[in-house]
Amino acid sequence: MESLLAELRAAVGAGAVLTDADVTAGYRRDMMPLAPHGQPLAVVLPSSTAQVRAVVRACAAAGTPIVPRGAGSGLSGAANAVEGCVVLVTTKMDAILEIDPDNRLAVVEPGVVNLDLRAAVEKHGLFYPPDPSSYDWCTIGGNLATNAGGLCCVKYGVTTDSVLGLEVVLADGELLRTGRRTVKGVAGYDLTKLFVGSEGTLGVITRATLALRPLPQAPSTLVATFGSTAAAGAAVSRVVAEGVVPSLMEIMDRTSIRAVEQHLRTDLNAGAALLLCQSDSGGEAARRELAAIEQACVGAGAELVYATDDLAEGRDLLTARRAVLTALEVYGAWLTDDVCVPRTRIADLITGCERIAAEVGLRVAVVGHAGDGNMHPTIVYDPSSQDEFARAERAFDEILGLGLALGGTVTGEHGVGKVKREWLAKEIGPVGLRVHRDVKRALDPENLFNPGSMFSP
Amino acid sequence: MESLLAELRAAVGAGAVLTDADVTAGYRRDMMPLAPHGQPLAVVLPSSTAQVRAVVRACAAAGTPIVPRGAGSGLSGAANAVEGCVVLVTTKMDAILEIDPDNRLAVVEPGVVNLDLRAAVEKHGLFYPPDPSSYDWCTIGGNLATNAGGLCCVKYGVTTDSVLGLEVVLADGELLRTGRRTVKGVAGYDLTKLFVGSEGTLGVITRATLALRPLPQAPSTLVATFGSTAAAGAAVSRVVAEGVVPSLMEIMDRTSIRAVEQHLRTDLNAGAALLLCQSDSGGEAARRELAAIEQACVGAGAELVYATDDLAEGRDLLTARRAVLTALEVYGAWLTDDVCVPRTRIADLITGCERIAAEVGLRVAVVGHAGDGNMHPTIVYDPSSQDEFARAERAFDEILGLGLALGGTVTGEHGVGKVKREWLAKEIGPVGLRVHRDVKRALDPENLFNPGSMFSP
Ligand SMILES: Cc1cc2nc3c(=O)[nH]c(=O)nc-3n(C[C@H](O)[C@H](O)[C@H](O)COP(=O)(O)OP(=O)(O)OC[C@H]3O[C@@H](n4cnc5c(N)ncnc54)[C@H](O)[C@@H]3O)c2cc1C
Ligand SMILES: Cc1cc2nc3c(=O)[nH]c(=O)nc-3n(C[C@H](O)[C@H](O)[C@H](O)COP(=O)(O)OP(=O)(O)OC[C@H]3O[C@@H](n4cnc5c(N)ncnc54)[C@H](O)[C@@H]3O)c2cc1C
Repeated sequence: MESLLAELRAAVGAGAVLTDADVTAGYRRDMMPLAPHGQPLAVVLPSSTAQVRAVVRACAAAGTPIVPRGAGSGLSGAANAVEGCVVLVTTKMDAILEIDPDNRLAVVEPGVVNLDLRAAVEKHGLFYPPDPSSYDWCTIGGNLATNAGGLCCVKYGVTTDSVLGLEVVLADGELLRTGRRTVKGVAGYDLTKLFVGSEGTLGVITRATLALRPLPQAPSTLVATFGSTAAAGAAVSRVVAEGVVPSLMEIMDRTSIRAVEQHLRTDLNAGAALLLCQSDSGGEAARRELAAIEQACVGAGAELVYATDDLAEGRDLLTARRAVLTALEVYGAWLTDDVCVPRTRIADLITGCERIAAEVGLRVAVVGHAGDGNMHPTIVYDPSSQDEFARAERAFDEILGLGLALGGTVTGEHGVGKVKREWLAKEIGPVGLRVHRDVKRALDPENLFNPGSMFSP
Repeated sequence: MESLLAELRAAVGAGAVLTDADVTAGYRRDMMPLAPHGQPLAVVLPSSTAQVRAVVRACAAAGTPIVPRGAGSGLSGAANAVEGCVVLVTTKMDAILEIDPDNRLAVVEPGVVNLDLRAAVEKHGLFYPPDPSSYDWCTIGGNLATNAGGLCCVKYGVTTDSVLGLEVVLADGELLRTGRRTVKGVAGYDLTKLFVGSEGTLGVITRATLALRPLPQAPSTLVATFGSTAAAGAAVSRVVAEGVVPSLMEIMDRTSIRAVEQHLRTDLNAGAALLLCQSDSGGEAARRELAAIEQACVGAGAELVYATDDLAEGRDLLTARRAVLTALEVYGAWLTDDVCVPRTRIADLITGCERIAAEVGLRVAVVGHAGDGNMHPTIVYDPSSQDEFARAERAFDEILGLGLALGGTVTGEHGVGKVKREWLAKEIGPVGLRVHRDVKRALDPENLFNPGSMFSP
């Protein structure tokens, strides 16, 4: 082990190899309390692709596993250390290497924080759509490795839809370039989209070429409140069926609403559910879209619908949605689940979560990206109580079972990581699992990268 | 071999196993004249997934390669028979199994013709975007396996952007289900997008779940003519930089214009280049978009710009673009190339093609999807002259070299198939090629599917 540490120090410099247990403790896990984690041998912070290659070669030679890590904001334990591993942290590789407005693309290192990229391209009138709620601290590398989503997916898709090409350090230290700088291209297998969402199990992403979009118009905002969950669910279905594509469509259930009202000391006038929608199409088009959404909501039995073109007011209306997690912290620690169901089954999911909450005797607040059926039932528990933790765990699993039973998936955007391995196996079945193992073995035969994450080898 | 044929007959019925050389000749190749092809042992037309599995098992046991095939409209030789293979044709599996307007998805068999799906979903006010120009006869299975593009990609993306999940028969006859019915989902590797574009080398797609969009508004159309290629190229760059996303943006060069003028007996009033654009945003938004495009064209030095909201007139204006291939047939056979370059390099590509045309002494007409830089330089030659054929082949290769030199890719949408294998290797390099081989071996260890297509094993 000492010889590996010496090689790592030679590769990245002594200051970029952390071994002090007090320091490495901060890199042992991400934001998911349920996932297992081990104690890393070392945490290394390379500054260049060459350094990443040297680290990978040294670890491969020593047979020491590597867990790639961005900001550690993940919610699946995917970046959690496995015992005795090297945690490879990309945060020093945070250069925006190029912004090409004429071809609407950017080339970045993996450690760039999502918000920094958004801000940099905005100066050129451009837009990098993927906007996970953690955008002010999560990294592009983490976003790529998890295929992160966010609020704008309903109109602009998820991370994979904005990636043109990657540079990846493979298990033998070789550098693979995937994709291209052009908008289209079908030369060979789509390895780019294979690495996107692979959760650090196939290689270390050291560079990405990202597709940008024109900056949308300032958003107009609509809020609708409902006396029943079923009515809110019906409103979502009507919007989808009407063919309107809002740039944001979020839902909050009764429990989220009450928590936020308490926290913000306000009355949201919403009985059972609240729907927040935006259109960034601008002018007449935005008005047409919001009018159609309003009609859908009213038709589904909304109690109150309010729309505004005012930017500041729109932002205020969104505050309620953004405040949910913080609001829940008054009651205890939160544990966010992540299922995606067909858009027609959102009400069933919320009702099911109410039943599960009653069964386990814990608060479960459902918020979610209604526009794509991606729901985040959030369980509140007392972290000092083993019993509550166990019940939270039970609720977490029951929600996954419910998601599958409703024709959905066990993860819409947070990933499988180290917390949903059994559920991945349930969802994709034995043939799916076998193909996953075959692909993993083809690219990482010694199981160097993030071993045991996503599925057991 | 007789025992394999007997097994195939048992699997799909004697009538669905073709062995008569006169009949199988029609299944030996696709629409690419340059690609090699062999003589199949048999052509089989299964009617169900179960039959596909039986065919795959029988061929695997006999060590007989399988070449999957849809309509054979491909332009890369990807569906061309290899000597002694079984060509597995999906055209009998042409059922649209489900259209779910509330979740905006369709489930189809692979042999469904693109146009038939478009028409079926349109009845529900829905839109299946991928629209290769061969849409009236190519199959969804072929579109998936080539990740087909078309005219609307500039706004709606390519085939992979419309696929939620697949059912694939693997080399051992097992049935793999990838993806899901929900809009989002990150449970496991994105195997769906790995199979999309894999050109029949990894398995047989027997079912697909496709994402649909709301039917767009009726398109408004703009045509602009330019006295120089450089000006037309600059107009495209300006449109991109302005942040306008038209629903169609096609370019025709001087040679295409002249051919079409001759063929349609009309004067297009276009000196060196013609740009055709559409907006399907409707109403004020469409007017705003076309006005911005008009300004970009005028600013770049357009000689003439004409815009119309009239649907029939718009269709008439598009006739010129659609007539190019037919117009060229007056001069000989056509050989369409397919490169994609950064959108700022379109003029360089056209100018380069003029130089190549002069060098080889053949007509090269450039048409293409300007909005994404995907150009189709089309070489005209006399098929009865070996010398012209050889010069056409040379031009074909030089255009690929030019595309790469301009920072592009050797195939924007037609694929690698059996005609661009060396060029794929050039584009992706040795590490890229190695990973392709590793992935292929992981999924198809005996090299059963389309051996030697895309790359040599
Ligand atoms: C409050 C909060 C809100 C959130 N909201 C959202 C949301 O709206 N949408 C959403 O999708 N997620 C959300 N998340 C989850 C999380 O922020 C995302 O998964 C994010 O993409 C993780 O980025 P990261 O840099 O923190 O990656 P990490 O957590 O450090 O790592 C995540 C995974 O990526 C791998 N990885 C990281 N960098 C690389 C690399 N360079 N090469 C290879 N693998 C790498 C790791 O091994 C791990 O498997 C939220 C999290 C929090 C705490
Ligand atoms: C006039 C003309 C215009 C064209 N315009 C365009 C265009 O605008 N955009 C574009 O992208 N292409 C275009 N093409 C090319 C071609 O039509 C597309 O590549 C189309 O997707 C092929 O579909 P097909 O059913 O004919 O497939 P085929 O040619 O039969 O096969 C193509 C590939 O798909 C594989 N395959 C077919 N079905 C399956 C299956 N079920 N499972 C696994 N593999 C399968 C085959 O093995 C082969 O590798 C054009 C062709 C012509 C002749």
